[in-house]
Amino acid sequence: MEFASDNAAGAAPEILAAVMAVNAGAAPSYGNDASMDRVRALIRETFEAPEAEVYLVATGTAANALSLASYCPPWGVVYAHDGAHVEHDECGAPEFYIGGGKIRRIAGADGKMTPEGLRSAIAQTPQGFVHGHQRGVVTLTNVTEAGTVYSPAEVATLTAVAHDFRLPVHMDGARFANAIAATGASPAEITWQAGVDVLSFGGTKNGCLGVEAVVLFDPAKAWEFELRRKRGGHLFSKHRFLSAQMEAYLTDGLWLKLAEAANARAEALEAAFRASPEASLMYPREANIAFATLPRALHRKLEAAGAHYYYWPGDPAPEGPDDEQIGARFVTSWATTEAEIDAFAKALKV
Amino acid sequence: MEFASDNAAGAAPEILAAVMAVNAGAAPSYGNDASMDRVRALIRETFEAPEAEVYLVATGTAANALSLASYCPPWGVVYAHDGAHVEHDECGAPEFYIGGGKIRRIAGADGKMTPEGLRSAIAQTPQGFVHGHQRGVVTLTNVTEAGTVYSPAEVATLTAVAHDFRLPVHMDGARFANAIAATGASPAEITWQAGVDVLSFGGTKNGCLGVEAVVLFDPAKAWEFELRRKRGGHLFSKHRFLSAQMEAYLTDGLWLKLAEAANARAEALEAAFRASPEASLMYPREANIAFATLPRALHRKLEAAGAHYYYWPGDPAPEGPDDEQIGARFVTSWATTEAEIDAFAKALKV
Amino acid sequence: MEFASDNAAGAAPEILAAVMAVNAGAAPSYGNDASMDRVRALIRETFEAPEAEVYLVATGTAANALSLASYCPPWGVVYAHDGAHVEHDECGAPEFYIGGGKIRRIAGADGKMTPEGLRSAIAQTPQGFVHGHQRGVVTLTNVTEAGTVYSPAEVATLTAVAHDFRLPVHMDGARFANAIAATGASPAEITWQAGVDVLSFGGTKNGCLGVEAVVLFDPAKAWEFELRRKRGGHLFSKHRFLSAQMEAYLTDGLWLKLAEAANARAEALEAAFRASPEASLMYPREANIAFATLPRALHRKLEAAGAHYYYWPGDPAPEGPDDEQIGARFVTSWATTEAEIDAFAKALKV
Amino acid sequence: MEFASDNAAGAAPEILAAVMAVNAGAAPSYGNDASMDRVRALIRETFEAPEAEVYLVATGTAANALSLASYCPPWGVVYAHDGAHVEHDECGAPEFYIGGGKIRRIAGADGKMTPEGLRSAIAQTPQGFVHGHQRGVVTLTNVTEAGTVYSPAEVATLTAVAHDFRLPVHMDGARFANAIAATGASPAEITWQAGVDVLSFGGTKNGCLGVEAVVLFDPAKAWEFELRRKRGGHLFSKHRFLSAQMEAYLTDGLWLKLAEAANARAEALEAAFRASPEASLMYPREANIAFATLPRALHRKLEAAGAHYYYWPGDPAPEGPDDEQIGARFVTSWATTEAEIDAFAKALKV
Repeated sequence: MEFASDNAAGAAPEILAAVMAVNAGAAPSYGNDASMDRVRALIRETFEAPEAEVYLVATGTAANALSLASYCPPWGVVYAHDGAHVEHDECGAPEFYIGGGKIRRIAGADGKMTPEGLRSAIAQTPQGFVHGHQRGVVTLTNVTEAGTVYSPAEVATLTAVAHDFRLPVHMDGARFANAIAATGASPAEITWQAGVDVLSFGGTKNGCLGVEAVVLFDPAKAWEFELRRKRGGHLFSKHRFLSAQMEAYLTDGLWLKLAEAANARAEALEAAFRASPEASLMYPREANIAFATLPRALHRKLEAAGAHYYYWPGDPAPEGPDDEQIGARFVTSWATTEAEIDAFAKALKV
Repeated sequence: MEFASDNAAGAAPEILAAVMAVNAGAAPSYGNDASMDRVRALIRETFEAPEAEVYLVATGTAANALSLASYCPPWGVVYAHDGAHVEHDECGAPEFYIGGGKIRRIAGADGKMTPEGLRSAIAQTPQGFVHGHQRGVVTLTNVTEAGTVYSPAEVATLTAVAHDFRLPVHMDGARFANAIAATGASPAEITWQAGVDVLSFGGTKNGCLGVEAVVLFDPAKAWEFELRRKRGGHLFSKHRFLSAQMEAYLTDGLWLKLAEAANARAEALEAAFRASPEASLMYPREANIAFATLPRALHRKLEAAGAHYYYWPGDPAPEGPDDEQIGARFVTSWATTEAEIDAFAKALKV
Repeated sequence: MEFASDNAAGAAPEILAAVMAVNAGAAPSYGNDASMDRVRALIRETFEAPEAEVYLVATGTAANALSLASYCPPWGVVYAHDGAHVEHDECGAPEFYIGGGKIRRIAGADGKMTPEGLRSAIAQTPQGFVHGHQRGVVTLTNVTEAGTVYSPAEVATLTAVAHDFRLPVHMDGARFANAIAATGASPAEITWQAGVDVLSFGGTKNGCLGVEAVVLFDPAKAWEFELRRKRGGHLFSKHRFLSAQMEAYLTDGLWLKLAEAANARAEALEAAFRASPEASLMYPREANIAFATLPRALHRKLEAAGAHYYYWPGDPAPEGPDDEQIGARFVTSWATTEAEIDAFAKALKV
Repeated sequence: MEFASDNAAGAAPEILAAVMAVNAGAAPSYGNDASMDRVRALIRETFEAPEAEVYLVATGTAANALSLASYCPPWGVVYAHDGAHVEHDECGAPEFYIGGGKIRRIAGADGKMTPEGLRSAIAQTPQGFVHGHQRGVVTLTNVTEAGTVYSPAEVATLTAVAHDFRLPVHMDGARFANAIAATGASPAEITWQAGVDVLSFGGTKNGCLGVEAVVLFDPAKAWEFELRRKRGGHLFSKHRFLSAQMEAYLTDGLWLKLAEAANARAEALEAAFRASPEASLMYPREANIAFATLPRALHRKLEAAGAHYYYWPGDPAPEGPDDEQIGARFVTSWATTEAEIDAFAKALKV
């Protein structure tokens, strides 16, 4: 019963097989491998974006920080949701790569920025005021940190605000596949057609060993991105091992199948919570993460039964009354089994 | 006949097998995996350094830049050989991570700094002169960029100079295994016992997919290094896939076996060059790289025979007389076969 | 009727005279001038801190950013009040000099952090959590942005919180003289005796041309500070022109006399507001800044009478009802005359 | 007999008078003062460049570092003469402001780059090679560090090389006035008409208290420059005190008169050296700096007579034979008197 994070899972068999297969013989290094050519073609096809450029890195933090740095000047503001990964979980990587920058946090229920909140935050960054930070870039996370999903229309509404101020838009898609699986939107619809300029397209959490694609829908920044990747130490010499993962991931819809499995398990988890009189959901469950509050006693029981997950938004006091309500985050992955869900539901019930 | 680089080779079967094996089930992320515990123990044992700390990253540039940044202030000088990778091949990653810095290039035959050259360069950085850069850190590359190897005594002579000025010493060991295989020195002898403070211990070029260990012989910098790694985007979520590579690499002397094979192939290559009246070696061949000058016509013939390698120090003019002497670099790897060498020797001969 | 800012005033005659006087003949450059020796002695005497080190720069932004960078690592958090100058008015200079960093804003009435707010903000920065920023430095502004003043006891309460977490404390004293004049505290009492580690001691706003002293109560950071100042381009070659200002400023209590004059004018301004049935004060007036809300019609009248000041916290809509209440900031300086106050009071009254 | 540096001199009376005069009354801060409007007009007129933008800072290091950062990306190379101030005397300010960068040193006699040397250095920075630094910006120093002067034709030859590679050109004109006085060229001829994009136009060394103008001949970078200046802490609140200096400097040809005086004194110094059988000039004396080698015994005598200057390129061993030849640098300024030169010549002679 592993619900700590989707990065606690291993890699999917197809991905591993591709890594094995690409190993034979010599291959050009530093991104000049043949598999990367196929990745490029697959990304363009998947996103219906024949001019897009794509680069691979191995971590989500690298993908986000390099993307933001390519679109935000050192004195720029990054507009992000209050709970964004770039603000809380990257140890300042965005500021490091940007060479300064400032993240402005925008509140919003269920992990989502509101258009009004975004507009107001941008408007409050005075234009042409030399004493303050300048307007830089907007970043959206989809799937959000609260496990909810922006629809294409919601994305478009936010990018329209950004574009009113001529700001570019980044999407942190560490769980992009889960968002696609949840919305049924096409990759194009929810990104460039909805006004996104650059995407961190995650593979790691959804069945890869470690690979993220940065998709630049406007290739104008491509060379700058390459230089930033290299001087960040993120250009792999044996690059084929990144390419092969991404190639397999994009082939025959594997990425969506894996995400659909994860989402289906989370849906079953949600059903289990809904069936329990003691549990209540904290946010709408829309992809592969469910948040629920449970009484302290029930947490104890679940842990005793072998469930593994994190409290949310943080650890509670070690001691407290049995009926104290305590929040927790439950993440499913491509590897979560129906049996795990059943066992969990059973432990929840008794 | 692949001699372009040791990073053109794939991964060794034992490494791949370890990656497969580690995949089963869930595992703690971000370096808390059990395999990393074993890596830590293996590094300490291999280096006879029970207090050493070790961190894994996926590229040599990351290992070097993070190491140097941990030991050099933003206004410090990095003393490096004229041909060092950190100067020429990392797109400014050291300066980026250091937050400034300045690399001072120290000349020296056969890819090696001389103690006199190093002493003079440090002495010329005025102490306590607020207008100039300050003395920072010394970095040695072993195996050197010229394919030669520093012996433990040579390392100790250079670190003694650094320590006279109270400067720390980094070793860029992208090909550390090849240096050990070449010298027969113990890992301890050629590093901390010879005065090295921090080592980039390469795995990628020598049969891994992509993993480098940074070994901090003095653990005082450990936490700072961890923070620098994270904010550089180099902390892997599915970290077990780095650990498993390094664990297998260090198990049963695999790392040395792979390097010995590469070195033996280069030795045979050297013999082929020595046997040829037309070829001459540019530097002493001591590990897995041979540099040779050959007449233009001979290069043409080798290429026609399918040999793949780079000119050195750069591409010659496209046209020229047949007997023009042109330098080239030939790198062998764990994967180079005796058959490749034989074929090459044959092509060289006819 | 100039109330826009204390930096709209010129320099006091004594300061100008000192600049003239120091001009004669040659002088050692880069801070080795004899006047700087006297500044050092005067600072140590004024602050009863015989070991303190002091360095001069020409702008408050430089003083703050260099101070913070000397005490906060690139991955550190700067804890500052919600309205702090370092957050809003320095175009990211702190982040630039720190090489990253993140300013956490702490709410609090009347421009002051509360101990609870500070404690909570620090505690919420998880200790030893490699994914997030780390605890860095606390910065207090005295006189605050709201024109209020921290007493020595209030400073000590806040630094005690910082020290509970072993964090250093910076004081932004761009209007330090006004705070001393307002509280009657000794410079020592309100700084190092109250737990402050480093002070930006302002001269510019209070009658100098452009000089700020950074006072390091613990000299351990002195050399690092010197290097940071130089590489920021803030070390003056003809340094005597900075020293002479600061020397005159500290001689015969000039700095306090100038601040007392400014504070007295603001007190009279406060009285005028209190006497007006239409005006109400926004914050307690404690030093040389008064904030008041006035009806739109009254603003129009004051401006017509020649009063110059800024709306607060920002410009109102251009049109609106006559009785709409609109906030404004009124700053007095050493150069504000009683006649100006009288004229303003008269315009307010009619 | 003060020949240590032109920054050992005070300010010229006209400059001081302007500072006094500008003091009266209130003035808009942060560069919005009326004197700055006049400076802008004077710069445009002086340089026959009606579109040029100009910004004031207080130190030469700030002027250089901000200029270079505005024209060089973080991964760019700054091509500079081997002896350049930006390389040796700014504690890494260029790298700090650039956010990385690398200075490539180009040898050349008498402090001057040769076109061949420059072309070769640029060509050796491989275009489109992601592993290395990229071509960034060329910087020329005029007057050079060797006291020589680039003529407009020499400048044009070097900028032509830069422009062949589409690189921008910065001129470090800390002693620009002395170069103009030496060549008789017009400011336009030796800068934008000769291909210079941005100029650090020095005032401090030539009779100001502390002011340097950065002249952007192409105003496209103006707003970026303003932001960089502010976040570097180099935007003065009481900006009028910078403007007034620069305004007076540019009025009635004062800047040239001061430089002509300094150059004339250096010419007399040169004559004295030429007249001495014991002295020999190290470089052609063209502006206000003379370099000469003298026997150790003669140095002793000059120092005993009260001459103050620096050895060059560094301090000699404390002891040595009387006839040992030791180099030294002798700088004159606007304040150097004929009497000082006469006294020096006399001391040299006896």
